[in-house]
Amino acid sequence: MERVGRHLILELWGCNAEHINSIPVIERAITETIAACDATLLDLRVYPFTPIGVTGVAILAESHVMIHTWPEHGYAAVDVFTCGQHTDPSKAVPVLRKYFQPERVQVMEMNRGIIIDEKARGDVGGVYAGVC
Amino acid sequence: MERVGRHLILELWGCNAEHINSIPVIERAITETIAACDATLLDLRVYPFTPIGVTGVAILAESHVMIHTWPEHGYAAVDVFTCGQHTDPSKAVPVLRKYFQPERVQVMEMNRGIIIDEKARGDVGGVYAGVC
Repeated sequence: MERVGRHLILELWGCNAEHINSIPVIERAITETIAACDATLLDLRVYPFTPIGVTGVAILAESHVMIHTWPEHGYAAVDVFTCGQHTDPSKAVPVLRKYFQPERVQVMEMNRGIIIDEKARGDVGGVYAGVC
Repeated sequence: MERVGRHLILELWGCNAEHINSIPVIERAITETIAACDATLLDLRVYPFTPIGVTGVAILAESHVMIHTWPEHGYAAVDVFTCGQHTDPSKAVPVLRKYFQPERVQVMEMNRGIIIDEKARGDVGGVYAGVC
């Protein structure tokens, strides 16, 4: 079963509120995540919100990394979507742990773009969910 | 059960290959999606890939819309993540159908940032998957 890419969906709770409200920390976390996953950065942008909260997005040659943070909840929503055999989005997890210091991380991995034959039309994407 | 946002994950197959390789079409699709969902655009960027394929991203006041396309497979991977009671990411579906003309659309909706009490720690995000 072929797939176009792997999409990791991460829920980070109990994060360091100062870190997940910091533009430089978000930038470093994204940059290091991309390197860890062996992906190629095309564009990185970070948007501060008022009064708090940050959105960071990296466009990759292999899809994207997206981070939205709610420091008031100690919460960060992270997506790491990569294509290609050379990339491994699961390598994002220790990097995000280092920068955001979450008490709890929930991970779901989806296969995106599953290429199936006609007989199997109706299948939905493969999903694996876990708490770590 | 409170949640921070709703994340729609869409798999579009059998799309019009010309449309999903067109920067103006992707821009219009994203712009109209945002209006349909009643969200607020902060930044819109579209990146062409070589030889084909497009990535389009909209940063919203309420999170994001992301589109990656593989015209060679007739496939588009779309994420619509919105926060706030006023937004409805499911309104993206008819807009994407109009612009990309998919033969088949798979939809998964995830609740992101479910705010749970201590007793319920260990729950993972709510997921609804369907084919339409």
